Amino acid sequence: MKSLLAVMLLAEAAFAADPLPSWNNTAPKKAIVSFVDRVTKEGSPEFVPIPERIAVFDNDGTLWAEQPMYFQSLFLLDRVKALAPHHPEWKTKEPFALLLKGDMKGVAAAGEKGAMEMLAATHTGMTTEEFTKTVSDWIATARHPKTGKLYTEMVYQPMLELLTYLRANGFKTFIVSGGGIEFMRPWTEKVYDIPPEQVVGSSVKLKFEMRDGRPVLVKLPAADLIDDKEGKPVGIQSHIGRRPIAAFGNSDGDREMLEWTQAGAGARLMVLVHHDDAEREWAYGAGSKIGTFSDALMAEAKKSGWTVISMKDDWKVIFP
Amino acid sequence: MKSLLAVMLLAEAAFAADPLPSWNNTAPKKAIVSFVDRVTKEGSPEFVPIPERIAVFDNDGTLWAEQPMYFQSLFLLDRVKALAPHHPEWKTKEPFALLLKGDMKGVAAAGEKGAMEMLAATHTGMTTEEFTKTVSDWIATARHPKTGKLYTEMVYQPMLELLTYLRANGFKTFIVSGGGIEFMRPWTEKVYDIPPEQVVGSSVKLKFEMRDGRPVLVKLPAADLIDDKEGKPVGIQSHIGRRPIAAFGNSDGDREMLEWTQAGAGARLMVLVHHDDAEREWAYGAGSKIGTFSDALMAEAKKSGWTVISMKDDWKVIFP
Repeated sequence: MKSLLAVMLLAEAAFAADPLPSWNNTAPKKAIVSFVDRVTKEGSPEFVPIPERIAVFDNDGTLWAEQPMYFQSLFLLDRVKALAPHHPEWKTKEPFALLLKGDMKGVAAAGEKGAMEMLAATHTGMTTEEFTKTVSDWIATARHPKTGKLYTEMVYQPMLELLTYLRANGFKTFIVSGGGIEFMRPWTEKVYDIPPEQVVGSSVKLKFEMRDGRPVLVKLPAADLIDDKEGKPVGIQSHIGRRPIAAFGNSDGDREMLEWTQAGAGARLMVLVHHDDAEREWAYGAGSKIGTFSDALMAEAKKSGWTVISMKDDWKVIFP
Repeated sequence: MKSLLAVMLLAEAAFAADPLPSWNNTAPKKAIVSFVDRVTKEGSPEFVPIPERIAVFDNDGTLWAEQPMYFQSLFLLDRVKALAPHHPEWKTKEPFALLLKGDMKGVAAAGEKGAMEMLAATHTGMTTEEFTKTVSDWIATARHPKTGKLYTEMVYQPMLELLTYLRANGFKTFIVSGGGIEFMRPWTEKVYDIPPEQVVGSSVKLKFEMRDGRPVLVKLPAADLIDDKEGKPVGIQSHIGRRPIAAFGNSDGDREMLEWTQAGAGARLMVLVHHDDAEREWAYGAGSKIGTFSDALMAEAKKSGWTVISMKDDWKVIFP
C-alpha cells in the first residue's frame, strides 16, 4: 500500500498549497477564500450543496483583456478585410470603405448603425460550423496590436487560478458575457476549461435548413439575446435556470448580474475587477467607452458590500 | 484493509450487474450497449472523449407519458380553474368560459388561438420564482386523471435506467423538449437527476425589473424559443453548443433533432420510443394528435438506421 500512502501524502500537500498563488494576501483574496470555506463546510449554516454552487464570470475585462477595444471587434475588423475581395461593393460603401482605407476614426463615427452592418456582414449568413472554423483559425493566429501576444495569452492568471480553485471546491463555472456566444465557445474549453454548454453570450437567431441533404444551422442577421446589463440575468435564467451564488464582472454591464446574484438567500459573493494598472495592463474606468466602470457602480459596490479587485494592488501577476 | 477489499468487490459486482434490468434483451438494448461500449473504449476507433459524450432526450412520450394530453396542458387547465376566482370576466370569455363549464370539446375547438390565450393567462405575467413555486406545488400533488398516480410517477423505468447508465459511462444527459423550460426545471433534478442547466425547452421572453427594490424576472406573453421540430437543433446549439452523439425521442417533433445528431462524424445513436402497448400504457402513433409518430418518420427511421423501441416488446416494465 506504499503507493496509496504516497497518493494520500501528495493530496494533502496539494491541499495545503496556496490555490491562489498569483493573488496578494489582501482583502479580495481573503473575501474569496472565506466565502468558499463557508459554503463548502458541511454543517456550516451557510453550507451550499454542490449542485447549487454556480459561479458566473463576465469575459471581456474579467477573464481576458479588452483594450484598445473588445477583441471580438478586432476579429470583426480582420474579417471585413479578409472578406473584402469577395465584396467589391465595399470599396464605395460606408463604413466598409472607411475601414479598408484605414480610417478608424471614420469607422468609429459611423456609430452603432455602421457597427451593426459590419457585424451582420461578418457574423451572419454562414452556418454555425463555418463560423466556428473562422473563429478557431483566427484565435490560433491573430495577435494583439500592442502586446503581440495571442489573444488567448491575454487572459488573467489570477482568474485562471480562481476558476480552478472554485471547481476544485465543487463549483460549476459559467461565462456570462456580452460577447458573442459562438465567438467564445470555440476556445473557452481549452483556455478556461469551461465547456460550450457553460458559455452564455449574445446571440443571433438560428435557422435550421437542409443543404445538400445535410442539416445545418444558419446564423441570421437578427439579434436573439443581448447578454449585457439587464440581459445578463435573462441569459442566466435561460441557460442555467438557477441563481448563481458568486458573480464576477468588471463594468457597468455586469451590474444587474451582480444584483441578481446578491438577491438570493444565503451566502453570496459579488466581485468586480478594477483596471487600475497602467504599467502591467491598462488603467481605465468611469471615463472609458470600453469596460466602463462608472462612479455609480463603484458607489453601489461599496454600499452593497461587493468586493473590488485592484489589479495593481491585489494581483502579483496579470498574464500567465 | 478489509473494508477496502469489500468496496472493491462490491464495485466489481455492481459493474457485472445488468445496468438495464428493465429492458428485454432485444435489438434496442443491444444497440444501446454496443454504442456505449464502442464510444467509451479507449483506443477504439470510435472512442469519444468524455466532454463530447452528449446525450439528448425529449421529455413528453420519451421520459414520461403524454396521454390523454401533454401533462403541461393538464397543468394549464388546472391553473385556469385555480385562477378563475380572480378573473370574473372569464365566465363570459371564450375559451375560458367553455373550460370552466367543463366543455372540453369546445375548448379543443377554440384551437391554437384559444390555447395561446390560456397559455398567456397561466404561464406569463408572473415572475420566474412565482411560476416555479406554482409548478412545484402542482407537481407534488396533482394526479393523473386515468392512473391516479403523481405525474412524476409516470416516468419510464427503462429510461431512468438508461439515463443512469449513460451518466455512469461519462455522458452528460440533457432534456430537449417542446415542453416549457420553466415547467420542467422545478422537478427534473429530483426525478431524472438532470439539473436545470441541462434542461432545454420552449420559452417565453423574460424581462428584468426591480420590484420593491428587489430584482425579478417577469415572464412575458411573447414566445422566445419553440423547442420543437426544427427548433430542437436550434435549442441544442443555443444551450449546449455542441452536437449530441446520442438522441432519444418518440414523435415527429424529434425528427430534426435526430437528423442533427446523426449528421456529425463518428459513432451516433438515434432512438425513437414507439407507444404500442395499450395494455400497460397507451398505443398510438400515426393517427394521434399527441405524440404523432407518422409513417414518414417510421420510414426515415428504417432508412437511416435509427433504433425503434417497442414498449410492448422491449420493456419489461413501464413505470417504476
